[in-house]
Amino acid sequence: MSPDLTAILDEIVAHMAAAEDRGTVASYIPELAKVDPAQFGIAIATADGRLLTGGDSDTGFSIQSVSKVFALTLALGKVGDQLWDRVGREPSGNAFNSIVQLEQEQGIPRNPFINAGAIVVADVNLGGHQPRVAIGEMLRFVRYLTGDDSVAINEDVAASETATGYRNMALANYMRAFANVRHPVDLVLGTYFHQCAIEMSCRQLALAGRYLMLDGRHPDGGRVVSPSRARRINALMLTCGHYDASGDFAFRVGIPGKSGVGGGILAIVPGRASIAVWSPGLNDSGNSCLGTQALELLARRTGWSVFSPPEEGD
Amino acid sequence: MSPDLTAILDEIVAHMAAAEDRGTVASYIPELAKVDPAQFGIAIATADGRLLTGGDSDTGFSIQSVSKVFALTLALGKVGDQLWDRVGREPSGNAFNSIVQLEQEQGIPRNPFINAGAIVVADVNLGGHQPRVAIGEMLRFVRYLTGDDSVAINEDVAASETATGYRNMALANYMRAFANVRHPVDLVLGTYFHQCAIEMSCRQLALAGRYLMLDGRHPDGGRVVSPSRARRINALMLTCGHYDASGDFAFRVGIPGKSGVGGGILAIVPGRASIAVWSPGLNDSGNSCLGTQALELLARRTGWSVFSPPEEGD
Amino acid sequence: MSPDLTAILDEIVAHMAAAEDRGTVASYIPELAKVDPAQFGIAIATADGRLLTGGDSDTGFSIQSVSKVFALTLALGKVGDQLWDRVGREPSGNAFNSIVQLEQEQGIPRNPFINAGAIVVADVNLGGHQPRVAIGEMLRFVRYLTGDDSVAINEDVAASETATGYRNMALANYMRAFANVRHPVDLVLGTYFHQCAIEMSCRQLALAGRYLMLDGRHPDGGRVVSPSRARRINALMLTCGHYDASGDFAFRVGIPGKSGVGGGILAIVPGRASIAVWSPGLNDSGNSCLGTQALELLARRTGWSVFSPPEEGD
Amino acid sequence: MSPDLTAILDEIVAHMAAAEDRGTVASYIPELAKVDPAQFGIAIATADGRLLTGGDSDTGFSIQSVSKVFALTLALGKVGDQLWDRVGREPSGNAFNSIVQLEQEQGIPRNPFINAGAIVVADVNLGGHQPRVAIGEMLRFVRYLTGDDSVAINEDVAASETATGYRNMALANYMRAFANVRHPVDLVLGTYFHQCAIEMSCRQLALAGRYLMLDGRHPDGGRVVSPSRARRINALMLTCGHYDASGDFAFRVGIPGKSGVGGGILAIVPGRASIAVWSPGLNDSGNSCLGTQALELLARRTGWSVFSPPEEGD
Repeated sequence: MSPDLTAILDEIVAHMAAAEDRGTVASYIPELAKVDPAQFGIAIATADGRLLTGGDSDTGFSIQSVSKVFALTLALGKVGDQLWDRVGREPSGNAFNSIVQLEQEQGIPRNPFINAGAIVVADVNLGGHQPRVAIGEMLRFVRYLTGDDSVAINEDVAASETATGYRNMALANYMRAFANVRHPVDLVLGTYFHQCAIEMSCRQLALAGRYLMLDGRHPDGGRVVSPSRARRINALMLTCGHYDASGDFAFRVGIPGKSGVGGGILAIVPGRASIAVWSPGLNDSGNSCLGTQALELLARRTGWSVFSPPEEGD
Repeated sequence: MSPDLTAILDEIVAHMAAAEDRGTVASYIPELAKVDPAQFGIAIATADGRLLTGGDSDTGFSIQSVSKVFALTLALGKVGDQLWDRVGREPSGNAFNSIVQLEQEQGIPRNPFINAGAIVVADVNLGGHQPRVAIGEMLRFVRYLTGDDSVAINEDVAASETATGYRNMALANYMRAFANVRHPVDLVLGTYFHQCAIEMSCRQLALAGRYLMLDGRHPDGGRVVSPSRARRINALMLTCGHYDASGDFAFRVGIPGKSGVGGGILAIVPGRASIAVWSPGLNDSGNSCLGTQALELLARRTGWSVFSPPEEGD
Repeated sequence: MSPDLTAILDEIVAHMAAAEDRGTVASYIPELAKVDPAQFGIAIATADGRLLTGGDSDTGFSIQSVSKVFALTLALGKVGDQLWDRVGREPSGNAFNSIVQLEQEQGIPRNPFINAGAIVVADVNLGGHQPRVAIGEMLRFVRYLTGDDSVAINEDVAASETATGYRNMALANYMRAFANVRHPVDLVLGTYFHQCAIEMSCRQLALAGRYLMLDGRHPDGGRVVSPSRARRINALMLTCGHYDASGDFAFRVGIPGKSGVGGGILAIVPGRASIAVWSPGLNDSGNSCLGTQALELLARRTGWSVFSPPEEGD
Repeated sequence: MSPDLTAILDEIVAHMAAAEDRGTVASYIPELAKVDPAQFGIAIATADGRLLTGGDSDTGFSIQSVSKVFALTLALGKVGDQLWDRVGREPSGNAFNSIVQLEQEQGIPRNPFINAGAIVVADVNLGGHQPRVAIGEMLRFVRYLTGDDSVAINEDVAASETATGYRNMALANYMRAFANVRHPVDLVLGTYFHQCAIEMSCRQLALAGRYLMLDGRHPDGGRVVSPSRARRINALMLTCGHYDASGDFAFRVGIPGKSGVGGGILAIVPGRASIAVWSPGLNDSGNSCLGTQALELLARRTGWSVFSPPEEGD
């Protein structure tokens, strides 16, 4: 029997409203530091077509690194498995913006979900075009996945990152020295910063993630990626989706997820649910504090885990 | 409909018999270097109680690091989640015997499946006893899981490691300096080396792993660990079970697994199968070359993946 | 009795002319890669006012990192020992352009003679001005030290570095993220690249270094820096002047020196000599191959070493 | 004119008696932790044969890592420059007991003055003998240098280190894995720990260091090492003698020195003085707090610095 998701969502929203430790809002992007930390939203799109929401599920937030999932999907569509010549598939063991590993491994980032890897992905998506072309393509893709043309980029956030993103500039220049960034750094970062500045609500983000729950199919029947590729993106989310807390997230929550410093997390239960949570306060690892707790509670209540027998939770 | 496992096993055995690159047998443990690389075995214990085998599935081999799964299970039974004060749960991003991370993180190993972490686990399992007590307990546990009292320790292999295990002695002494190894180093390593020297066949290993496929239950109905703990061990196997190739294994195979330098791999499909493969030749990451390929082929043919919808493969 | 420097110089020039392994010309700055490797020059300015030269001692070359000595002298004049809040004084143990240490030590470079440290020094020398002001000041300072107004900047080399200096851009942006570069990165690097592109002959460089042999005094009697500061700059040259081969240079040659990838080395024997050698081929550590050998031979023949009793060599 | 050393010594002793921050006595060797921190001694042996002392200059202390200088001298006598195939000559950039660099550089320690390097030196000095043979040889050598047969080993300190020296056991085992320690680890460390437990007073230590001030000659006229080797040992002391504070010591004091965690420092002014200072409290870098200050003050008052013109200070 399926769990009563409505009751579970109510419990989660109540629990999070009462939370005392809400983490700390990211301060390194000035525009993000302004967000009110007393917010929490959740949305679940199920495989049978329902959409359940709770809390501030219609408030837009900066998806930031969650965008790396969609950007990776696009880049794999462009260059296929050749991408893996330029980006690894291993957890990094380091923080999201670490540059140490890049030096040791000759400019090849460990995986596409740390910043360095996502910059290589942006370089692929940029191709020989202008940033606005690549950004437009990304936006159309996310709108298609969501089925909602109102998804947009917050230009203030993009400008804020462009003005202060020194670490990302360092990463991009460093990889350019190894020829693993192939287009001018400012164009690549222009693409990257705009992609990170996409604004979505939990409702929209849960809808956007449905193809990863449906083995690569859009709910409209179209194929976004092959089943094999969908599984592999899920695998990467599980092993690498939460920076140096990925192992802990897999251990405690047990489902693939990708977090962003805007406080959003997209989590996928293959065959069952695409889940978006959001709360702007971050924990020490840079992942949403309440968002992580909400997913842990949801997994416990529903029995959803990629590591449990399929009978459980059905 | 279930896949025709018999046909798939036949295909895998034939495929592996024809393989040209069989990897390289581990040379750093002299006793292991003597093993004939032209061997391959596979065994699958299914959730519905069948046992399918192929190739050299009854030949015993040194399970080596696969034993870390059973040792972890025992240690969690002794000290529960307090274990995590002394061992992390994150992929290491380094080789199995790296000491770099230990210095940076003050003697706390990244996870229980790298050597340093497994030595801490052995320290817990040793308690205040003599190594033969802890080793006896471990052997009884593995025999119980397997339902086969013939499982034994290869004393030559244990002696070989004791005589040459300088890196492990370095790791243990290093953690002793941080008081994260609490018993005399030679006793802890005595326990550890004997645990690694347990000899099992694929048939026995697949049987031993059934509790992880059955959400913590022994097929005889007894509970080995709680469902939550079983899932978490599976999660650790997925994120950390193949050293610095764990991400790649999750990406390509998509199921939790733990490898050993003896050439064995135990892999778990929750709710469906406990799989053991063995071939002594290793790839560059120190994991069984043919064993990894066999699991990848098996996953492709069966559709088994923790990242695919549950309907697939059933 | 003083050694017969003329005879020694003749021997060195002959020896270097016959050398078979001349190293490899730096290729990462395109403009430098064009230089003919079959060149070698040497000049010695002595404390008693003589100037001895040999080989291609009047051919100009790009002084590159040798400029870091003059830039450090200027910066210490501007901000004094406050500089050491932003730059360390320890050998780095890493290559000249490593970024690893910067991450571990929060954007504080190990010493002013690795690239990261020299970029901080350039940031200090830039102050709130335009690069051309800081570059003009540097050029005037070097001309004053040399007593030769013909010293100039090679604009082609400066442009070449600006176009391809991705690693330096990475370093500068990375330190900007830690607020240890305080002015816009392109202005700081503009200053830095032009300083590196100063062109001097061995004759000019040996003259420029005289203040470091004379305990901080210009031969014209003026004080360039205090005696204490001159000694400290010499100490830094000894411990940090040859990147990760500094210890070996101190061991084999035994006098303070600073090398550049243009193939020049400035070496100081306190109270006795300011020496410039140049040969464009570099060894594996990025220091002039023949230049290092020439200094080793010179030190052996003259007995000059800061580690020998003062009686020796007089 | 020579400085008035007697007056300077008086000033230094008075200054150190009034010091408030005396550092912290090393606690990781239990036997050393018992030493009274309110002690300070100094002794200067001059090239013209005088011996000046001040403070607790006749109190014995554990010379610890200062012994690495004498051990290196012995090992070079045994195997000559072949030693450098097994030990580097570069500053490490890391703490004295770091193991990180060993992993990156395949078991070759950076220099003979960090613990790992000194363990390789002890392995050389051990040869195929029993530790008591090598220890006896070392003791005879130090007594010869000192001209004092009362120099002895403190067995309590040696036993204390043997019982708790886990990090050194880790280092030795780690290098044994790379075959850069060639004899049984317990024998090598037995040699090493006894060498470190040599007890000397400042008076004795200053006498022992005279050969390094005299370009390799014993004051009795005998040659201990060649001039070239004496200079090179001095060079290593300057670049590597104070762990990761070596650069700072060279910068501030400007003369070669080797410190030990017992609080002693041996410093050499080539051609002029062999200096021993001792105070048990250590600074953050593990070097004697007052000892370092005393040497800095001495250098300032005397003008002694290898980086100043020879006329100064004479």
